[in-house]
Amino acid sequence: MVVKSQIKFIKSLQQKKYRILHSLFVAEGVKMVNELLRSDLKVKDIYTVDAHAIPFNNDYCHIISEADLRRISGLKSPNKVLGIFHIPDPDRLEFKDWIVALDSITDPGNLGTIIRLCDWFGIKHLACASDTVDCYNPKVLQATMGSITRVNVVYTDIADLAAHADVPVYGAFMDGESVYDQNWTKSGILILGNEAHGISQPLEAHIQKKVGIPQFGSVTAESLNVATATAIILNEIRRS
Amino acid sequence: MVVKSQIKFIKSLQQKKYRILHSLFVAEGVKMVNELLRSDLKVKDIYTVDAHAIPFNNDYCHIISEADLRRISGLKSPNKVLGIFHIPDPDRLEFKDWIVALDSITDPGNLGTIIRLCDWFGIKHLACASDTVDCYNPKVLQATMGSITRVNVVYTDIADLAAHADVPVYGAFMDGESVYDQNWTKSGILILGNEAHGISQPLEAHIQKKVGIPQFGSVTAESLNVATATAIILNEIRRS
Repeated sequence: MVVKSQIKFIKSLQQKKYRILHSLFVAEGVKMVNELLRSDLKVKDIYTVDAHAIPFNNDYCHIISEADLRRISGLKSPNKVLGIFHIPDPDRLEFKDWIVALDSITDPGNLGTIIRLCDWFGIKHLACASDTVDCYNPKVLQATMGSITRVNVVYTDIADLAAHADVPVYGAFMDGESVYDQNWTKSGILILGNEAHGISQPLEAHIQKKVGIPQFGSVTAESLNVATATAIILNEIRRS
Repeated sequence: MVVKSQIKFIKSLQQKKYRILHSLFVAEGVKMVNELLRSDLKVKDIYTVDAHAIPFNNDYCHIISEADLRRISGLKSPNKVLGIFHIPDPDRLEFKDWIVALDSITDPGNLGTIIRLCDWFGIKHLACASDTVDCYNPKVLQATMGSITRVNVVYTDIADLAAHADVPVYGAFMDGESVYDQNWTKSGILILGNEAHGISQPLEAHIQKKVGIPQFGSVTAESLNVATATAIILNEIRRS
């Protein structure tokens, strides 16, 4: 059974301020929780309606009813398992390879997709401006499809990062020089801006190279979604 | 004022079966409705709380209250204008250039993003398996950012299309030959599969060339999102 105070506590972790306060986050679903259990993340509690849905461990696993799962879940259709994990301390950013940096991404699906892309293209470090959506937001987690365990996400001042990095700083702009015409360096920082406003002006001053994705056919579409732009630019960097 | 029967009628258009029955769809928001008004689409009615939000026309514009807008809107936060438009008859598919074909895409955001990508890369025709999410679904429309007016979306049997087309048929597969190693033809069909199950078996038989996006770093991420995969492959076709 899950008592009232537990329900309140678990539900509170749907909100960023409580995730930060307790340094805990919630993950749901058989596939996602199993993937997190296989990672280096420290688990606090697992609530499941089915002991066979996960590698059961008496220390932290609790069998609960479907009704109780609905009470603690943030999903409309809960999927058997809910896990509570400790938020890990981020690693230091390393500049040996490319780093992706996000200036105020607000859509959880976009951040989740970008984390999944970093994983695919072997980008180990993702820097996010502090007003970027929280990577432990349940919708972000869902969109990462487990990639969150393999990408080091660091919330930091991107302008400061760009100003002090000793690698080239690239930024994605609508009117940037074609990504097809670049001699991509071995390492660098690739900055992508907010969905509506792009890269902020104070940050723009620190960008050494503005790049853009050529548009084909008549110039009509006003922009690309930031996650698809990230996909195309990371592909260009890696294929080179 | 909006009477009860109108509210019921407009709300019914949130559902595919009523959109098909009446051959009408709903679009919301100042930017979206203005973009549709500038296109070739035929408008039926515009409901607005602000006559200055749109090019006002007495024939089809109705000023309503905020309360009434909330009653007819499908959004949590309605944005000034709701328009009802006639669903256009799709054009015939043309094979002079590339066609994108989708095998049962279910996520509205994915379909909307793919329509926006087709627009960006100058792909004029998008073929969708008949169980693909409806392109006039409000969430799809929102994600297209207006590109729906510039891409011809045709619901059809993709296996039949692939079997009878006289252009090369490519399909995206996890284990396909690298997209970097292709001599892309001038025209062709590019097929992308369902988010969870990929391209269905009966359709696979008609595919002449299986292509895939190389993964970098350790092989960890299990797949790319279908919209980001589309972005990368269309970029490869166009840059060649």
